[in-house]
Amino acid sequence: MNEDKLKDKCGVFGILGHQNAADMTYLGLFALQHRGEEAAGIVTYDGEQMHLHKSTGLVNEIFNEAKLKALPGNSAIGHVRYSTSGSSTVKNAQPYMSDYSRGQIAVAHNGNLVNARVLRDELEAYGAIFGSTSDSEIIIHLMAKPSYRTYEDALEGTIRRMKGAFSLVMLINNVLVGARDSYGFRPLCIGRMPEGAYVLSSETCAFDLLGAKYLRDVEPGEIVMIDKSGLRSLYPFKKDPTRLGHCMFEFVYFSRPDSLVFGKSVGIIRENLGRELAKEHPVPADIVIPVPDSGNFAAVGYSMQSGIPFQTGLTRNHYVGRTFISPSANQREFKVKIKLNPVKAVIEGKRVIVVDDSIVRGNTARNRVKTLREAGAKEVHMRISCPPHVSPCYYGIDFPDPSELLATRYPMDEIKKFLNVDSIGYLSIEGMLRAVGGDRGKYCMACWDKVYPCPVVDEMDKYGIGKKR
Amino acid sequence: MNEDKLKDKCGVFGILGHQNAADMTYLGLFALQHRGEEAAGIVTYDGEQMHLHKSTGLVNEIFNEAKLKALPGNSAIGHVRYSTSGSSTVKNAQPYMSDYSRGQIAVAHNGNLVNARVLRDELEAYGAIFGSTSDSEIIIHLMAKPSYRTYEDALEGTIRRMKGAFSLVMLINNVLVGARDSYGFRPLCIGRMPEGAYVLSSETCAFDLLGAKYLRDVEPGEIVMIDKSGLRSLYPFKKDPTRLGHCMFEFVYFSRPDSLVFGKSVGIIRENLGRELAKEHPVPADIVIPVPDSGNFAAVGYSMQSGIPFQTGLTRNHYVGRTFISPSANQREFKVKIKLNPVKAVIEGKRVIVVDDSIVRGNTARNRVKTLREAGAKEVHMRISCPPHVSPCYYGIDFPDPSELLATRYPMDEIKKFLNVDSIGYLSIEGMLRAVGGDRGKYCMACWDKVYPCPVVDEMDKYGIGKKR
Amino acid sequence: MNEDKLKDKCGVFGILGHQNAADMTYLGLFALQHRGEEAAGIVTYDGEQMHLHKSTGLVNEIFNEAKLKALPGNSAIGHVRYSTSGSSTVKNAQPYMSDYSRGQIAVAHNGNLVNARVLRDELEAYGAIFGSTSDSEIIIHLMAKPSYRTYEDALEGTIRRMKGAFSLVMLINNVLVGARDSYGFRPLCIGRMPEGAYVLSSETCAFDLLGAKYLRDVEPGEIVMIDKSGLRSLYPFKKDPTRLGHCMFEFVYFSRPDSLVFGKSVGIIRENLGRELAKEHPVPADIVIPVPDSGNFAAVGYSMQSGIPFQTGLTRNHYVGRTFISPSANQREFKVKIKLNPVKAVIEGKRVIVVDDSIVRGNTARNRVKTLREAGAKEVHMRISCPPHVSPCYYGIDFPDPSELLATRYPMDEIKKFLNVDSIGYLSIEGMLRAVGGDRGKYCMACWDKVYPCPVVDEMDKYGIGKKR
Amino acid sequence: MNEDKLKDKCGVFGILGHQNAADMTYLGLFALQHRGEEAAGIVTYDGEQMHLHKSTGLVNEIFNEAKLKALPGNSAIGHVRYSTSGSSTVKNAQPYMSDYSRGQIAVAHNGNLVNARVLRDELEAYGAIFGSTSDSEIIIHLMAKPSYRTYEDALEGTIRRMKGAFSLVMLINNVLVGARDSYGFRPLCIGRMPEGAYVLSSETCAFDLLGAKYLRDVEPGEIVMIDKSGLRSLYPFKKDPTRLGHCMFEFVYFSRPDSLVFGKSVGIIRENLGRELAKEHPVPADIVIPVPDSGNFAAVGYSMQSGIPFQTGLTRNHYVGRTFISPSANQREFKVKIKLNPVKAVIEGKRVIVVDDSIVRGNTARNRVKTLREAGAKEVHMRISCPPHVSPCYYGIDFPDPSELLATRYPMDEIKKFLNVDSIGYLSIEGMLRAVGGDRGKYCMACWDKVYPCPVVDEMDKYGIGKKR
Repeated sequence: MNEDKLKDKCGVFGILGHQNAADMTYLGLFALQHRGEEAAGIVTYDGEQMHLHKSTGLVNEIFNEAKLKALPGNSAIGHVRYSTSGSSTVKNAQPYMSDYSRGQIAVAHNGNLVNARVLRDELEAYGAIFGSTSDSEIIIHLMAKPSYRTYEDALEGTIRRMKGAFSLVMLINNVLVGARDSYGFRPLCIGRMPEGAYVLSSETCAFDLLGAKYLRDVEPGEIVMIDKSGLRSLYPFKKDPTRLGHCMFEFVYFSRPDSLVFGKSVGIIRENLGRELAKEHPVPADIVIPVPDSGNFAAVGYSMQSGIPFQTGLTRNHYVGRTFISPSANQREFKVKIKLNPVKAVIEGKRVIVVDDSIVRGNTARNRVKTLREAGAKEVHMRISCPPHVSPCYYGIDFPDPSELLATRYPMDEIKKFLNVDSIGYLSIEGMLRAVGGDRGKYCMACWDKVYPCPVVDEMDKYGIGKKR
Repeated sequence: MNEDKLKDKCGVFGILGHQNAADMTYLGLFALQHRGEEAAGIVTYDGEQMHLHKSTGLVNEIFNEAKLKALPGNSAIGHVRYSTSGSSTVKNAQPYMSDYSRGQIAVAHNGNLVNARVLRDELEAYGAIFGSTSDSEIIIHLMAKPSYRTYEDALEGTIRRMKGAFSLVMLINNVLVGARDSYGFRPLCIGRMPEGAYVLSSETCAFDLLGAKYLRDVEPGEIVMIDKSGLRSLYPFKKDPTRLGHCMFEFVYFSRPDSLVFGKSVGIIRENLGRELAKEHPVPADIVIPVPDSGNFAAVGYSMQSGIPFQTGLTRNHYVGRTFISPSANQREFKVKIKLNPVKAVIEGKRVIVVDDSIVRGNTARNRVKTLREAGAKEVHMRISCPPHVSPCYYGIDFPDPSELLATRYPMDEIKKFLNVDSIGYLSIEGMLRAVGGDRGKYCMACWDKVYPCPVVDEMDKYGIGKKR
Repeated sequence: MNEDKLKDKCGVFGILGHQNAADMTYLGLFALQHRGEEAAGIVTYDGEQMHLHKSTGLVNEIFNEAKLKALPGNSAIGHVRYSTSGSSTVKNAQPYMSDYSRGQIAVAHNGNLVNARVLRDELEAYGAIFGSTSDSEIIIHLMAKPSYRTYEDALEGTIRRMKGAFSLVMLINNVLVGARDSYGFRPLCIGRMPEGAYVLSSETCAFDLLGAKYLRDVEPGEIVMIDKSGLRSLYPFKKDPTRLGHCMFEFVYFSRPDSLVFGKSVGIIRENLGRELAKEHPVPADIVIPVPDSGNFAAVGYSMQSGIPFQTGLTRNHYVGRTFISPSANQREFKVKIKLNPVKAVIEGKRVIVVDDSIVRGNTARNRVKTLREAGAKEVHMRISCPPHVSPCYYGIDFPDPSELLATRYPMDEIKKFLNVDSIGYLSIEGMLRAVGGDRGKYCMACWDKVYPCPVVDEMDKYGIGKKR
Repeated sequence: MNEDKLKDKCGVFGILGHQNAADMTYLGLFALQHRGEEAAGIVTYDGEQMHLHKSTGLVNEIFNEAKLKALPGNSAIGHVRYSTSGSSTVKNAQPYMSDYSRGQIAVAHNGNLVNARVLRDELEAYGAIFGSTSDSEIIIHLMAKPSYRTYEDALEGTIRRMKGAFSLVMLINNVLVGARDSYGFRPLCIGRMPEGAYVLSSETCAFDLLGAKYLRDVEPGEIVMIDKSGLRSLYPFKKDPTRLGHCMFEFVYFSRPDSLVFGKSVGIIRENLGRELAKEHPVPADIVIPVPDSGNFAAVGYSMQSGIPFQTGLTRNHYVGRTFISPSANQREFKVKIKLNPVKAVIEGKRVIVVDDSIVRGNTARNRVKTLREAGAKEVHMRISCPPHVSPCYYGIDFPDPSELLATRYPMDEIKKFLNVDSIGYLSIEGMLRAVGGDRGKYCMACWDKVYPCPVVDEMDKYGIGKKR
């Protein structure tokens, strides 16, 4: 994709039973950095009280040795996030930490509640005050209800009130909690370090970095509570394996290829997506090239399936980060070229198949094609390893407004013209399901097929207050 | 004093009816900077919603043009504070802003509730969660109680529950509120700008900077509500002018000499303190010198009363701020000398009266005397414009633990030896009252005479949870 | 390689005839960033005088809009460099700019003079003073000799005195100069922008970014002078195409794969190196994987030649830059894993051929093998697209001391043991020459075969003053 | 003054024989900070080579523990300066350090050569190159002339060529050098630390901070050379005590009041200036107030002589440094008020004598009067402790262009109107001489009386190249 990046709401991490809990969480968040580049935070519990540091920026900008030393304790949770509002505000950064009647509690979550407005209005009516617009603060308010006898009661009661997508980690005094909505929209994995510490993470790539072993996923609808006596589970919902909603786009784009997500290797799935793409959209050509690095695996799969040689036709500039670009060169085409430069000698005179994971607005793809043609490509065939995006996500991903999506603006033949390609091929819903070896009942593909597994409460609010903020 | 500074909890400012409310608040806080150097914040209300920016640091480090532009609106409140915990934490910075059932509310306060723990425990028992340890958050929780019909009800009910010292400013949607406890411990003034905007400020020096006119103080026990129709008051307590507790130390040390505080000129009062000091503790000498700038006014008063010439015997280094001092020079004596260097030619061979406002631990004063003797002073007579500090303040000032105070560690003759002075003289309680022209019933002088006007609830808490944090 | 990076002394850029000369140079340096990450600078000439800004850091950290605006003019030169001394010193940053009798002059160079000490001693004997240890300052001193009649005389005389490797750019008032030593060790290309401006650059990737067309290389031994009337050349040496010394390591490692260097595509040459490697060191295996991104092209070449499928077995973390790594995780193995994580599902149970460009000390390679084995690789075969490094470079590359090089410490079978690989294969000198399609007389391969094209004067200095600093 | 500050070109410091030479120099520069706020640097010599760090900013912004550790050695020189060009350029920061045929040399100076252009042109004609526009670089070039046999020869020869004002410190390998022009324009003092280290400093306030004893001044025309065997002197000029040019403005404004300068106490001289001012310009009034802190000492002197009480009528805001001031308050009057606020209760209804050291452009003084009148002053009488400024300084002080000076723009009665004062009085030349107890032949007062002790060469340059840069 390499476009205006889609914004996943977040990555979470938790650990219990490690003397350097903050250090490990820092590393875990570093591994999950791709899930949220705009803010990060860590809360630790030292047996007596919690310690918090969070700020805007990248994980390695926010933390340093001194900051981590100021976060003592054997348990911790952490979070990386995208802020949708002004980049300088730390108000909505997570984890969210509070005192309440049972001590201290901290929450970090990935996903989006579809009844957040309803819950908030209800809580405010009973006197609650809100310092942020984060779902995490709602969750803590629900946990703090005085009617619950135990924290287990509070957990079950709270989770039952929450509708939508959430993979969350909590610290409740000395207990580490992990929980997932009943559809399992977002991933959440359980691992264990050689010395015995338990770890929770959005993706297993964090386990690799820490030398932790992947045990299993937190199941859809499961609440996991971990303390020094081990791991226990609560199941506030009855299980229904035919009504799941694993986010297919985690495979296509979000997760790291070296992670296991929903129990499967993301890298291998991406190769499979490329193979299926080659089956559905074959074309005679000289070379297959990926858009690095988002198209790397699918391009290898396409090449294997088609027998057309894989080559590196675009090189990635590793210094492009928050680069200042001088005003006199500030056009979109230029921004494309500063990131990925064609290798002319590879491209020149060739029929080129370009493989990428997805197209959102289409402007980046269009400029990419232009640079390939300028580099001498004889033909350019674009292959995309998922269907066209046409609908919003209510479960934690910030797509542009549907009116800005390429596939809602143009029919397929005009897309071809817009991009100026010789052919275009998107993988089908069926192709994706073949690639993951799964059936429709297990995956959420609403952004492509508009089938939303979980009803969206706030949008239906007849008083329109869902739009309040 | 010029010592380990005493830490006043805080300075507040508010404005309503000015199109550049954030700019004016920035300037107001700049004028109040001496009341809190470790964090600052501003909340504005633009007619639809509130905007907040707060951070650690000095006012002019925290705000810049862009940050102020992001704070639109005609009304604003602001705060400067000392953090008692780690300098990097922004958690307790004020104002504290929240959503609640009636819209949005923001609070900033100066002082200290003596029943904070009791209120907090009660609120938590009803399900409240606390993201900070600030009294402001407690105040908002009290305001959010669903049983109140109107915000005026909420204000009266809330203020009645609060015990201790508080001078606070609030924004409740489009209403600016100022309120003071019934003892009037901390100052809070009302002013008006030529164009009509109302302003509230801890001290009048902020009015001078803005060109605003001082109208009057918010009275002890008064709640002032300002909106576009003007100013109204509520009086939740019955007035009792014989039971006030104006903080005498505001005159002696905290407030700026160019401010009016409790309706009187701080600079003139300090001159009076110096005059009284000369009456109580005369001594033959050649020159009177101040410890700049804290002793400037009292030294002038002492000189006038005694007829002994005023001279500048110590010069202040204006670059000493957050200066790094190299390790090879890192002794206390050195730190004294880098701030204030004696003017040898003025001191040499003279009998010197040194006037300062107060002595806390005494180490700085002792080193000061040493440098004066090294510069050739024949005699050193120290004169202090208040009595010896012996007891803690529960109303918003962080004194060191009583066990560290010079006057609790030594009897007067040993203090003389410790400081190595030829004589020492502290102004008496009666001398202070003469200087302000007031009577005992109006002032809190508890840090000197242990008479606490308002009972301290948390300290008496039999469950000891007052110490919880 | 991805190891303790080899340090190329530098990248250069020049432009004449563009109204945003500083902006263009900024972009050119951005494209050349890989040739020097520790300091950068730009000098412009506005028709009356020169303007300089240089500092330590990355190009986009050093410059911003305001800094570029303060560099007016139609001509400019720029430089990126590695500092070998303390990172904070800006003393040796280039370009070096001076006033002298003929006006102003600025120099930036890539390479290393092998008679720098001799020239410096001679100049000092005549009264010269040196503010840096940079060769550029020596060059300016040579140019400033009063005996030269014209700047062309000075250029010819200066270049003749310089021994060793140098690709340099100069501004002499309103003339842009490019020059290369007679061996052509380091690259230097001439390009032209659509609007007519001439550009000089170490590599053509800078031309691509600016939309400039590659014209030709500055020839070995050529001096190019560009002003508004166009381009002229001086040839202070007689040409000898059989005695060239193009640095082969530019192809293997340094240059960007999308650049032309010495007139050839770096990417294609790297594929060829991979093909030759497959011919020289075949082995039965399941997959070929690169060490990304340094081994990408050679791995594709190896895969094509051998028919063994190319896959992505290691993923690169794009956030690893100047990452703080927490002390509790501060081992070398960890540092390897944080950069490149194996894709277990790809590696597990496979016989893996790992292709990289070079091995220097060997520790990184060894840890890489360890992580592959832990990920389940059945066999690990390492293939390197150049011979073993055994000797220092005197022409501008900072290799570690020979005693630290893996190939000088161990014979080949012990290297295999040290790395714990099932087999190891280095490409031969002959293989490299086949890959570039060239003959021995054209390339410097001294770091592998100890044949130094140009004698090293300073090292032979019998008074030992070559070691003075 | 407290106006657009006059810019003294610079403060210098040197030390030999102290194991923490860099630390001591840092502290010395800190004490001299008022002589130059825009750049600073330190060079040390460790017995083998020199180490340099310099940058723009305040001393305590530029140096920290790590930076000082990177400056080992027993001898050091340091410098603080004002940059007249762009604030971000480090090009002209001092000390200037070079290699030359006799080893290494570093120079820092205070003053201004009046034949800099002539020397520079001559040196360039012999092949010299210049990386800065600093006089220090010229000095090093002169020192590097190959014809000198010894460094003592070089010193004598170099100093003889230099015309104008210079108080300089040098390190020549292991020798610390101090030198002053034959007029003694700028101060330079010699001190000794208790442990034996020699120190050189522009003012003695640096000695106080280090605990060093003031020995004597470097005499006008003297070169002092200090090494481990002690201190020796050279006198390249014949002494003429009737042709000196001590800068009178050092007493009036520049030097710190706690310093000895030209062997006299600056503070006492300022009191004397105030006394003479009271004699020359008496007026009936109620109070004497200083413009703090520049007028403090003179106001005390005025009060003593006149018998009119001294009071503090203006308070200084200690947070005004590099304060951002919001655009909506960005008028000049405001800037005056943010720095110094009147104490109304002191001023109101009084006839006020305001004492300051000098007036340059007059705008600040005018606004100051306005705020005093607004605070209720019945009469305002301004008293200035030196004559009106009318002419430029060629010896190291950057006054505004004569056309901008208040006293060249208006006759005295219009100055009174411009400032809106009831009376104005400037001290006379004779009054100043009485205050210092000296005669005309010893002091330079050219900025007031246009008598320039040393002819200005560059200005007379008939080819106009004195204006080249």
